[in-house]
Amino acid sequence: MNQHTPVTIKDIARKFKCSPSTVSRALNNHPLINEDTRRNIQEYAQKVGYQRNSVSLSLLNQKSNTLGVVVPSLNQFHETAMIEGLQNILQANGYMMTICVTNESYTLEKEYVEKLMANRVEGIFLSVSQETYDSGHYQHLENILHRNIPLIFIDREFDGVPTNSIIVDDYWGAFTATEHLILRGFKRIAHLKGPNGLTVSEKRFKGYKDCLAKHQIAFDENLIITTNFKAESAIMPMHRLMSLENPPDGVFAVNDVVASAAMQVIRDLGFSIPQQVAIIGFDNSPFSAYMFPSLSTVNRFGKLIGEEAARLFLNNLNLQTKQNETIVLPPELIIRSSTLS
Amino acid sequence: MNQHTPVTIKDIARKFKCSPSTVSRALNNHPLINEDTRRNIQEYAQKVGYQRNSVSLSLLNQKSNTLGVVVPSLNQFHETAMIEGLQNILQANGYMMTICVTNESYTLEKEYVEKLMANRVEGIFLSVSQETYDSGHYQHLENILHRNIPLIFIDREFDGVPTNSIIVDDYWGAFTATEHLILRGFKRIAHLKGPNGLTVSEKRFKGYKDCLAKHQIAFDENLIITTNFKAESAIMPMHRLMSLENPPDGVFAVNDVVASAAMQVIRDLGFSIPQQVAIIGFDNSPFSAYMFPSLSTVNRFGKLIGEEAARLFLNNLNLQTKQNETIVLPPELIIRSSTLS
Repeated sequence: MNQHTPVTIKDIARKFKCSPSTVSRALNNHPLINEDTRRNIQEYAQKVGYQRNSVSLSLLNQKSNTLGVVVPSLNQFHETAMIEGLQNILQANGYMMTICVTNESYTLEKEYVEKLMANRVEGIFLSVSQETYDSGHYQHLENILHRNIPLIFIDREFDGVPTNSIIVDDYWGAFTATEHLILRGFKRIAHLKGPNGLTVSEKRFKGYKDCLAKHQIAFDENLIITTNFKAESAIMPMHRLMSLENPPDGVFAVNDVVASAAMQVIRDLGFSIPQQVAIIGFDNSPFSAYMFPSLSTVNRFGKLIGEEAARLFLNNLNLQTKQNETIVLPPELIIRSSTLS
Repeated sequence: MNQHTPVTIKDIARKFKCSPSTVSRALNNHPLINEDTRRNIQEYAQKVGYQRNSVSLSLLNQKSNTLGVVVPSLNQFHETAMIEGLQNILQANGYMMTICVTNESYTLEKEYVEKLMANRVEGIFLSVSQETYDSGHYQHLENILHRNIPLIFIDREFDGVPTNSIIVDDYWGAFTATEHLILRGFKRIAHLKGPNGLTVSEKRFKGYKDCLAKHQIAFDENLIITTNFKAESAIMPMHRLMSLENPPDGVFAVNDVVASAAMQVIRDLGFSIPQQVAIIGFDNSPFSAYMFPSLSTVNRFGKLIGEEAARLFLNNLNLQTKQNETIVLPPELIIRSSTLS
């Protein structure tokens, strides 16, 4: 073999008396290739110095074995749990994942989607950014479907784009958390809200308000604090809240981190948890069980969302006609010491 | 213009009497393009239905404006903080980031690096996986440099690969944490260690041991617990430790999550923190300040690592000859109530 001509897949196929696509699959660790064949072909390819050229390969429309994941942030436990769930299933099936973080920007979401498609990903898992909701633009999402690339919404879907989605019922989670406090006898319930205008904040806020209404408890605007999801943003307003003439006896926090900061303020001011003030968070993050007292919360099943989304993707690969499913997971109330007097 | 011939960059350049590369920069939101020019070209391109083709563009060796980030996991606060730091600087400079998670696998690390290069990324930020250390294989890392693609190690470097790196001195962080406990008068100090064989665990373990030796405190194997970095893995062994005839009066935990679980066991068994048992963690994760008592810890500066790595990358773009720097950040001891009696 001429040392100076690059070895091609066809050369290897001739050597093994098989088709070029078998060689390609062996080199790409396709799950359906016999283990011995794969090893023999890979060892030979390495010996003769075969170099694959992914870009030209993708122009020929070969498989990339890569999937795109587009999420608005990575700062919250929930998003990394979803990615862990996706990885658990998809890496075992030979896929690699490219993760893109939009920071809630429509422009970045659109650019990432275009770039993922240009790189020939075989599927896109996407959690819609806030700016995309606000703008109402969804052509970039429809483009994915027009190109016949599987699109699966994870956690946040875009109504009107017909595809698979797996979401958690945030409204219901908030309603259940608030109702738990009411049923335990707490009546003056504050809400530490997420940023205004963020869909996820507003859904939880509505769940809280509707639950008060159901139990004929008057909504009191003085008991609403707006946070940025971070602990620090809850400290000063929580001090103010606990200094009211008529302070709250219950707190529903938009997430566990904000709840942890509120607990510190409550403790520091000498109130007992949960006897004088009960508190419940949202997320079931890893440390919530180890707060003092341990924090009641709402499980959003991030890892399960990722695993189920991966299974939906894999199942759909084998179907002749695609099915569009929307799976809504009910959040789970987790009751710990912070609401059990 | 013929409706059926795709509009090219050259057509747009002719219309605006500028060079094709100006059009390309305008379409790619290059920071050096005048705002009006950019808007006019983008609006015209949209009107005439210009479709860019990233794959053929990358074959022509155009800029991709994309950077690769390769990390061993996303489960820990530290990794997501590094990515946040990278984003803070790089998104503002018009770059998009593709994040790849290796799960400590050498094979995945190698595949991701190849795929990123095939997709013409303009730089790679990489935190070396444990299997890569164990295997001793680093040809895939040298390949990045041979292709003249900037490589910056973040948090975990590979000795002998000459490039830029920003790391934190884990050994020193562990030494300082242990010494803080000793100087506060605690003598029988347990260590909740990370997984055996993981470089980061062993560095911290050595920092702990060397500090004991410096202060002439005998090392006692009975005071070492091995965890998997997760809270649950510390519960049972911590119970056992506190039931020893001669239980520890201080605990140095490999991270804050493990420390939070240990604190719960200590509290549940009726010991006071820090009077009877002092405890210090590692990471300065967002909730550590809000534990009860608030948790002393070691700041690893994840966000700063990301920001500095991004600056190194940007600075190097403007240099004629590349400089290789290794920046070692000293970890910061953060003293809170859990070690202050």
